[in-house]
Amino acid sequence: MRINDPRIEVYEEGPAYARRLDSEDELAPFREAFVPPEPGLIYLDGNSLGRLPRQTAERLGTAVTDEWGRDLIRGWNAGWYDAPSRIGDKIGRLIGAGSGQVVVSDSTSVNLFKLVMAALSLRPGRERIVSDVLNFPSDLYVLQGCIHLLGNRHRLDLVPSDDGITVDPVALSQAIDERTALVTLSHVTFKSGFLHDVAAVTEQARQAGALVLWDLSHSVGVVPIDLDGWGVDLAVGCCYKYLNGGPGAPAFLYVRRELQERTCSPIWGWFGQRAPFGFDLDYEPAAGVTRFLAGTPPVLSLVALEPALDLALEAGIERIRTKSVRLTSYLVYLVESVLAPLGFWLGSPRNASQRGSHVTLRHPEGYRINRALIEEMQVLPDFREPDNIRLGLAPLYTSYPEVWEAVDRVRRVVKEERYRQYPSERLHVT
Amino acid sequence: MRINDPRIEVYEEGPAYARRLDSEDELAPFREAFVPPEPGLIYLDGNSLGRLPRQTAERLGTAVTDEWGRDLIRGWNAGWYDAPSRIGDKIGRLIGAGSGQVVVSDSTSVNLFKLVMAALSLRPGRERIVSDVLNFPSDLYVLQGCIHLLGNRHRLDLVPSDDGITVDPVALSQAIDERTALVTLSHVTFKSGFLHDVAAVTEQARQAGALVLWDLSHSVGVVPIDLDGWGVDLAVGCCYKYLNGGPGAPAFLYVRRELQERTCSPIWGWFGQRAPFGFDLDYEPAAGVTRFLAGTPPVLSLVALEPALDLALEAGIERIRTKSVRLTSYLVYLVESVLAPLGFWLGSPRNASQRGSHVTLRHPEGYRINRALIEEMQVLPDFREPDNIRLGLAPLYTSYPEVWEAVDRVRRVVKEERYRQYPSERLHVT
Repeated sequence: MRINDPRIEVYEEGPAYARRLDSEDELAPFREAFVPPEPGLIYLDGNSLGRLPRQTAERLGTAVTDEWGRDLIRGWNAGWYDAPSRIGDKIGRLIGAGSGQVVVSDSTSVNLFKLVMAALSLRPGRERIVSDVLNFPSDLYVLQGCIHLLGNRHRLDLVPSDDGITVDPVALSQAIDERTALVTLSHVTFKSGFLHDVAAVTEQARQAGALVLWDLSHSVGVVPIDLDGWGVDLAVGCCYKYLNGGPGAPAFLYVRRELQERTCSPIWGWFGQRAPFGFDLDYEPAAGVTRFLAGTPPVLSLVALEPALDLALEAGIERIRTKSVRLTSYLVYLVESVLAPLGFWLGSPRNASQRGSHVTLRHPEGYRINRALIEEMQVLPDFREPDNIRLGLAPLYTSYPEVWEAVDRVRRVVKEERYRQYPSERLHVT
Repeated sequence: MRINDPRIEVYEEGPAYARRLDSEDELAPFREAFVPPEPGLIYLDGNSLGRLPRQTAERLGTAVTDEWGRDLIRGWNAGWYDAPSRIGDKIGRLIGAGSGQVVVSDSTSVNLFKLVMAALSLRPGRERIVSDVLNFPSDLYVLQGCIHLLGNRHRLDLVPSDDGITVDPVALSQAIDERTALVTLSHVTFKSGFLHDVAAVTEQARQAGALVLWDLSHSVGVVPIDLDGWGVDLAVGCCYKYLNGGPGAPAFLYVRRELQERTCSPIWGWFGQRAPFGFDLDYEPAAGVTRFLAGTPPVLSLVALEPALDLALEAGIERIRTKSVRLTSYLVYLVESVLAPLGFWLGSPRNASQRGSHVTLRHPEGYRINRALIEEMQVLPDFREPDNIRLGLAPLYTSYPEVWEAVDRVRRVVKEERYRQYPSERLHVT
C-alpha cells in the first residue's frame, strides 16, 4: 500500500481505489458516531463547523430537560460549575497539556485578548509583536485592539508570505529578536492550511526572551500537539472546527503552569475570582488557570462540547493525523491529476508535513465554482477571498470515496460550465 | 380587592386567600408554558436561574438536529449570524430601547468590561467612577480590573448603605460631580433587591457630564425599563434570571445610538468588524452597536434564549410588574406576620416601589435554615452571606399558593428546629 507512506503522493485514480482505501480505514466506524447529513451531501467544511455527534444531541437533551428543567439551580453543583476546568483538562489531553492549565469559556477572540494583554504585561520593556500575514484576520484585529488600548506603544510585525501559502521559517526566525515581547501565530493557517513548526518557533522565541501564543483553532483535534513538551507559554483555540463542539462552542485557553501566578486576566471576572460565592467586594484572582475565566460560561454550549471530545480521545490523535495526511495527500493527487488541467492550482502546501487537514483549491472562477458546488452539486466546501475553495477533510467522518466524488463533482462544474449561471458578486457567506 | 393597591400591604393569611389571589391572576396561564419541576417543589430561585420554557426545549432540539446536524455551515446564513442583533432588538422591546442599540453575546462581565472601557475613553479628563456597596461584587471586580489596566489613575467611589438594604439617594447624588467619568450601578441590587431610580440618577449624571452604565441583570423582564426615554448611555444585563434564557445564557449590552460611533470596544473582535467575511488584515469597526460584539457567539446558548423572550413580551412588562409587586407585597406581609416572631427580619425594602422581584429574609441561622429548606422541605431559595435567604418571585410562573406554602415550610423548619442537624460550615453553593 503506497498510501501508507505519505511521502509518496501518487495514488491510483477512480472510485474503486477510494473504496479500497475506505475498507482499510481504521477510523471508518467513527463516521457512524455522527448524525448523517442529507443523502448525497458531501460535507467538506468541518474545518469551519464540525458535524453533529449523535451523543451530543442526547447530552444536550439531558442538560436541558433534566439538569436545567428538573434540577434547576442545583445543576451548578452537579457539573456545570466545574465544566470549564473539567472540559479544559479533557482538551488538554488532546494538546499535550497536563491538567490545570486549560479552561474553556468565552470565544477565541476574547481568550486571545486576555492572553495577549497578560503576555504584554509580562514583557514591559519590549514593544514588538511578531505574527504573519497568514494568521486569522480575527487574531490580527485583537492584536491591533490591544496595541490601541496600550497607547500604540507596540508595533505589530507581520512576516510576509512569498507564495501566499507558506511562511519562510528563516524570515520568521529573523523577525524575532530581543525587542520582541510576543510571537503569536496560527498553528495551521486558515486559508492555505500551512502548518507551522511550533517546537522550532517556540524555541526561537524562548532564546530571544519572548513569549509565544499559539492559536490552535485549525489544528486541535487533527494535528498532534505537545504544548508542555514544546515549552509553549500560551495558547488559545476554538472548539467548533475539528473538535465538533457545535456552532460558536466556547473556546479554550492554555497558560503554562509557571506563568499562571505571575500574571492575570485584564478582565477581572467573578469566575476567575478566588472565591466567587464569598461575594467579597475586592477581587482576588484564583490560584491557577481559572483566574483567566471571566463571567458565567454559556452552559448549554459548553456541555454540548464534551461528548465530541470523547470521540477524538477514543480515536486517538495519532490515528487521526495518519488518516488526515492520507486524505489530504489523496486529494492533492486528485487535484493535480484531475483538476489542474481545468485551470485549478493548489493553494496549500504540497508537502504533507507542512499541511493541516484542509486543502485549498484556487481557480480564477473560484467564487462561482464554489456557489455551483453548494447550490447544485451537494458539495459543501467554503470560500475565502479572492479565489480559494477550501476543502476540509475531517478524519472522524470524511471518507476516501467522498474525496473522490467531490473532486469529480468539481470537475463536472467546470467541464460543464455550470458555474457560469452564477454572478461574481459576493453574497453574505460565512 | 385590597391587593390591587400595593400600598396596602396587609393581606389576609392562609391558603384559601392565596388560592383566591391565584384564581384572579391574569398571568397564571403562563405557568403552563414552563416545564414543571418535580411534584411538590417550590422554586424560588428564578432571580438566579429562571425555569425552562417548554418552547425552549423544542427550539434547541430544532437548532441541534435540523440547523446544526442537517444544515451544517448553512445555519449561519439561516439565522445564526443575525441572532445577536435580532435577539438584541427583542430584548430592546423589554427595556425601552429602539432597534439597533442592543446586541446579545458574551457574558455580563465581558460586556461590562467593554462598556466600562468605552465609557472611560469618552471621559479622558475625569478619573472617578461612582458605584455603591450593594452592586454585584462581580461588577466591582470588573471595575477594579479596568482601573488596574488603565494604570490605577481612576478611583472607585462606593456609596455606602446605612442599613445594608438601600442606598440614600442624596448620598448617591452628592457622590456625582464634575470629576465623575462614570456612574455604574445595578438597577436592582442582588442581595436586598433594592430598586434604584434610574431616571433620577441618570439625570444627575447627565447634569454632571458623567456617563451612566446600568446593570439590568436583576430587573430585566420583571421591572419596566425605558432606557431611551430615561436617556441612559450604556447598559448590560444577564438573560438567565427573570428572562429564563438558560444557564449561562449570553448577556446583552446597550449603547445609546449617539454614542455608538464615538467609541469602540477594547476587544476588536471579528464579529464587530465592518465586514467579517472580507478577511481584511486591518480592523475597521462596524457602523452600529454590532461593533461591540467580539468573537463568534455561542449559538446554542443564544438561540435557546429567544422563545423565553417571546413569553415575556406576550405577558407584557406592565402586567408582569403588577403581579411582581403583588407577589412580593404578599410575601412581605407573611414574613412580618408569620416569620418575624420566629426571629426573621426583612432584608429587602418594605416599600414596593423600592423593590425588585425578590424578597430577602434574614435570620441568625439563615445558612442552616436555607439548607434545611433545600434538603428536606422541597423549597429552593438561595443564600447570600452572611445570613440572607433570597426568595425570588417570578411572575410568569410563581403562584400565590406557592408563596404561602413556602412561608409555611420556612415556619416549620424553625418551629420544629429542623435546621439544627446541619453544620454552619459553608458548602460550595451557587
